[in-house]
Amino acid sequence: MAVISAHCLHSPFSTPPLLLRSPFPSSPPRSKLAPISCSPSSSSPSPLMAPQSEDGRKRFMEFPYVSAPHRDLMVDLFSTMESRLGPYLLPCTLPPDVQYYHNQGSTALASLHIRSGLKPSPVLSLSLSLSLYIDFILGSWLHCKLPSGALNITSLSAYLSPSTDAPNFLMELIQSSPTSLVLILDLPPRKDLVLHSEYLQTFYEDTQIDEYRKILEKIPEVRPYSSSSLYIRSVVSPTAILVCIETEPGRTERMEEIVRDHVSAIAKEVLGIWLDRCACGGREMGEADRAHLAKRDRVFKSKTIEIDLGSSLPRLFGQEVATRVLGAMREVFSI
Amino acid sequence: MAVISAHCLHSPFSTPPLLLRSPFPSSPPRSKLAPISCSPSSSSPSPLMAPQSEDGRKRFMEFPYVSAPHRDLMVDLFSTMESRLGPYLLPCTLPPDVQYYHNQGSTALASLHIRSGLKPSPVLSLSLSLSLYIDFILGSWLHCKLPSGALNITSLSAYLSPSTDAPNFLMELIQSSPTSLVLILDLPPRKDLVLHSEYLQTFYEDTQIDEYRKILEKIPEVRPYSSSSLYIRSVVSPTAILVCIETEPGRTERMEEIVRDHVSAIAKEVLGIWLDRCACGGREMGEADRAHLAKRDRVFKSKTIEIDLGSSLPRLFGQEVATRVLGAMREVFSI
Repeated sequence: MAVISAHCLHSPFSTPPLLLRSPFPSSPPRSKLAPISCSPSSSSPSPLMAPQSEDGRKRFMEFPYVSAPHRDLMVDLFSTMESRLGPYLLPCTLPPDVQYYHNQGSTALASLHIRSGLKPSPVLSLSLSLSLYIDFILGSWLHCKLPSGALNITSLSAYLSPSTDAPNFLMELIQSSPTSLVLILDLPPRKDLVLHSEYLQTFYEDTQIDEYRKILEKIPEVRPYSSSSLYIRSVVSPTAILVCIETEPGRTERMEEIVRDHVSAIAKEVLGIWLDRCACGGREMGEADRAHLAKRDRVFKSKTIEIDLGSSLPRLFGQEVATRVLGAMREVFSI
Repeated sequence: MAVISAHCLHSPFSTPPLLLRSPFPSSPPRSKLAPISCSPSSSSPSPLMAPQSEDGRKRFMEFPYVSAPHRDLMVDLFSTMESRLGPYLLPCTLPPDVQYYHNQGSTALASLHIRSGLKPSPVLSLSLSLSLYIDFILGSWLHCKLPSGALNITSLSAYLSPSTDAPNFLMELIQSSPTSLVLILDLPPRKDLVLHSEYLQTFYEDTQIDEYRKILEKIPEVRPYSSSSLYIRSVVSPTAILVCIETEPGRTERMEEIVRDHVSAIAKEVLGIWLDRCACGGREMGEADRAHLAKRDRVFKSKTIEIDLGSSLPRLFGQEVATRVLGAMREVFSI
């Protein structure tokens, strides 16, 4: 839930759509990269999962109220992440009334699913050293009936620990109507890119990740999106995909087509780069760098919650629910 | 000269222009700010100026080959900067063949004008403490005949010293045809904005500088511009104006109108904010912070020269001229 208060501010799109090419006219950039192995993989959910967590996971994975291609994409991305990182994750330990919550009139409903990384321990085998890198993964959906229609937000993010400086993962889909969708897809950097040009080279130039942004921006219904929060604009990478997709009024099937044929393919590729190069990249930090990374991560998480949810959760769900959910999140976020 | 290799990649604009509103329908944001005084002001050029420097300055201020509104804007901005900061600047000490240079066939011509800040000295009065803040100001123009037409780039930038952490100033106009113009206008931050949210608040939120970007993007011929360099995208602020302006083929008078009525007003306001809040903002750093700032500034300047000029100057002017100009710049840049 990176920009829950985001809105698609552009005027409705009115140019007739052009003939679209396949999103990958030539070989996709990631295929040029040698995959970096890390020790996968298990079926999800984790065998350690408690029944309470399993119920919460089931409800979360329903992703109700959104179109089938949108739901399929979210389920696919979360399953891929769990399947690759599952052995290094704890089950979700959020209270049931945080895993699923709603306002008094049930006009606003939401689900939240967070799985923290296993904490390092001397009894863990060396093959589990990846557990050091995962801070937590977070998935959520939110549905809200508004006078102007329904708002649906689905998100998936992953935060790495200060044991590595590799970028985090962030994806959010904000649907303010069946013909209007904001997509945020990025690997937010965890270092100052001006000072660390080698970091820019490793994660953003060598991975050719900017190609996906270019492919998406060729689709006529896609326009650049600018978050109203300057802080959110500051935390994203220079290759961030921040776009607003608007189809002509009533053309919901065209929106579904764009999500199914273009957004899905690109989101899966970007997650693949993140899993290979960041979560499983083996880029371990020394003690000296960890303190600075931990400080920056803490500010990032704290500001993100404050900007993203601090005012909108109380407005949508009431103060009591908001206090409960934000408190539980701050605990997992260690802020 | 921040992105000399930049190109306007968008397809020609073909939508008929709409009735334009004044760029400042309500009171402009800067008028809401209490001006911060610093000790101006003298006529320019500096009375210390040597005849050689004066000749170079005259040639520089000609800004030949561009339209009258474009030239007027550059002269106005550079004069404003000199008039406000003049007492704290040394004359340009570049060799004459760096202040003005061309290739063998004189199909590529350029002028460069750099004035460094006075170095602090115990004999300087307290009123000259501002001299501590100015590293140097840099203005340039470049004209190049290409098979596809003429390329004209004019730029103005100002770098502050590690005595203050306030943002730098950057403006560049890249005209690849009479109907196509890229505008880069920004106060590039000198700190990691993710870690220093107070810095974001002071220079980018409290100044309401993002309003100018919004005003400009309402003009129908204006589209967001994305630099091909990920490093250049990383150094700019979240309120950076990075736009491509394209008028219909043949409509050069419309381009001149946009520069005169919109770009000029906005560039002058942004320079005003920089002069009041950054160059004369009185935000002095302690010794401890200066070392980190100096390191970041050095990387920034070095990478900017490398990306911006490292390959394009030899291509346009030949290796001998490029080596001479880049060497002189590296000396002023202290890298």
